[in-house]
Amino acid sequence: MRLLRQTIEAIKPLDNEAQAKAQARLDNLTKPPGSLGVLEDLARILAGITGRLPTSLPRKTHILMAGDHGVVANGVSAFPQEVTAQMVFNFVNGGAAINVLARHAGAELLLVDIGVAADLPDLPGLLKRKVAYGTANLAEGPALTREQAVAALEVGIEVANDCIRRGTELLGIGEMGIGNTTPSTAILAALSGLPVREIIGRGTGIDDNRLELKIKAIEQGLKVNRPNPDDGLDVLAKVGGLEIAGMAGVILAGAAARVPVIIDGFISGAAALIAAKLNKLCCHYLLASHLSEEPGHRIMLEMLGLQPMLNMRMRLGEGTGAALGMTLVDAAVKIFNEMATFAEAGVAGALNG
Amino acid sequence: MRLLRQTIEAIKPLDNEAQAKAQARLDNLTKPPGSLGVLEDLARILAGITGRLPTSLPRKTHILMAGDHGVVANGVSAFPQEVTAQMVFNFVNGGAAINVLARHAGAELLLVDIGVAADLPDLPGLLKRKVAYGTANLAEGPALTREQAVAALEVGIEVANDCIRRGTELLGIGEMGIGNTTPSTAILAALSGLPVREIIGRGTGIDDNRLELKIKAIEQGLKVNRPNPDDGLDVLAKVGGLEIAGMAGVILAGAAARVPVIIDGFISGAAALIAAKLNKLCCHYLLASHLSEEPGHRIMLEMLGLQPMLNMRMRLGEGTGAALGMTLVDAAVKIFNEMATFAEAGVAGALNG
Repeated sequence: MRLLRQTIEAIKPLDNEAQAKAQARLDNLTKPPGSLGVLEDLARILAGITGRLPTSLPRKTHILMAGDHGVVANGVSAFPQEVTAQMVFNFVNGGAAINVLARHAGAELLLVDIGVAADLPDLPGLLKRKVAYGTANLAEGPALTREQAVAALEVGIEVANDCIRRGTELLGIGEMGIGNTTPSTAILAALSGLPVREIIGRGTGIDDNRLELKIKAIEQGLKVNRPNPDDGLDVLAKVGGLEIAGMAGVILAGAAARVPVIIDGFISGAAALIAAKLNKLCCHYLLASHLSEEPGHRIMLEMLGLQPMLNMRMRLGEGTGAALGMTLVDAAVKIFNEMATFAEAGVAGALNG
Repeated sequence: MRLLRQTIEAIKPLDNEAQAKAQARLDNLTKPPGSLGVLEDLARILAGITGRLPTSLPRKTHILMAGDHGVVANGVSAFPQEVTAQMVFNFVNGGAAINVLARHAGAELLLVDIGVAADLPDLPGLLKRKVAYGTANLAEGPALTREQAVAALEVGIEVANDCIRRGTELLGIGEMGIGNTTPSTAILAALSGLPVREIIGRGTGIDDNRLELKIKAIEQGLKVNRPNPDDGLDVLAKVGGLEIAGMAGVILAGAAARVPVIIDGFISGAAALIAAKLNKLCCHYLLASHLSEEPGHRIMLEMLGLQPMLNMRMRLGEGTGAALGMTLVDAAVKIFNEMATFAEAGVAGALNG
């Protein structure tokens, strides 16, 4: 609890002076002011986060948290729970989508077993930080004890702090956990007050029968647990998940250390909602990557004050959207550093504006 | 005219068999079917375009067409006409946004003077294929003669064919031409029948006064010229531009040679509308990159049956969005080739669906 409290308290606002300096350079580059849109925003925000002009490509680590969910007993997913552990092996062997896209982005991939419901052997690139063998069934009672939720948040903080100590300058987050759109939807419902039916989605692609089971499980979970929307830790413990807690911890640690965190889709969005409830300032340290196909994702991003860069109709998770987003961050840094100014290029400026 | 006619007639539908083969592989990769959205679509479409599975990253050339516009005399742009030529020097010296982003995408950048209103010296990387010293003022009469429009289309075809002969497997298009959102808006108005006021935008960022001048210039141009919406060549000549014609030529050549063409924003969208009017099939050979800030762009993409991947609030042109889009095409090709199948990875498939 001490690490969590210290981390939450260490988060400060962005550096406005650094942002103004970055903006001044952006406005002198050979383009109409603001015409590169989000590429300019990214360069300015990186300056505000780090307190320095973004003069080199950030060293990147993508943290993938894996955990299981007791609520799969209610038939909420199209895939059996064993797939979580099977996919961890796939990640270790380099065959999953996130392996491909993390390589594409030049990011190191760090796998964390924070709550897989199986004993995993020692595997290269896998951090074994299991807090529990999956959550309890949120439809019947709290998914986690408050102590487990804190422990999982602190695993995320520790893992992120280790990365940052070793030189990571941009953190990506993603997850694997069969059934985890269910707790994410429950978190969104609890924090937004919106009816479950309005925000529900098909996750990995469930049919109508499973969709009804999913809605019922979440509605029942909210009724049984009565999570307190003013207490992020309460919401996380009662209807959350271990990998969600771990990602929220990564966000808090990134914000505390002034390292940007690029989020993925619906599940990492739920983690961001929890982190933002623990300290609203951490929203400023987040970069949104893509808009997920999961209907509630748009609402989450609005609640976080973020706009997605990519609209690829993706709904895989793992951090696949975050990895694509990293390549756009690199593009922004290159724009900031490699473009000529009007004076350097001998190009005339605008006549108005 | 012969080259244009031959090229238009050579365009055939996509290869459905190749698309089905690509889809079969995509459905066996370790992810819920379809969950990578547009990344999967891209891999399948590349197969349909080329007739082959996309087994390696495409060799890329970004073609940037530069041309001037007589309508700038009406005060439609915030920048003086000289900036078109000044920016060509900036491109040659590597200091513009497109230089940075083409390098980021691993694309060769090919500059074409197809209609700059100034004599340019011999410069490295610049193809001198000037059809005219800019267009005539579309507000007062035809921007181009029909012969000039054909000549500019054929320049685009020849430039693209040369690239393809030298091994280009993915073409990007972009442009430089002070004032060129004006002819692009006129083309959209002519082909969609929508009122100018409903589709007008601020281009590089004009103020309210210039916006009124721009609307009047386009409305007057449509009234004076009466472009025939059933005749793409007539619309292009009367209210188009040389760089727009050149880009339309690149699209036609790409489609005829079964090479994908990734389009950029509003100006290249106008070129695509012209190309599609000359042969509707060429839409299938287009990849949309980003959604521009220019309000009419969304309408153009709907008319073309395309969906943008990126929403970065960009409005620079040059092909900056297309270059970012190329990196997503590479990501799709890597996904197609580097992911493990369910059988290879020992992962269980879906229970339903």
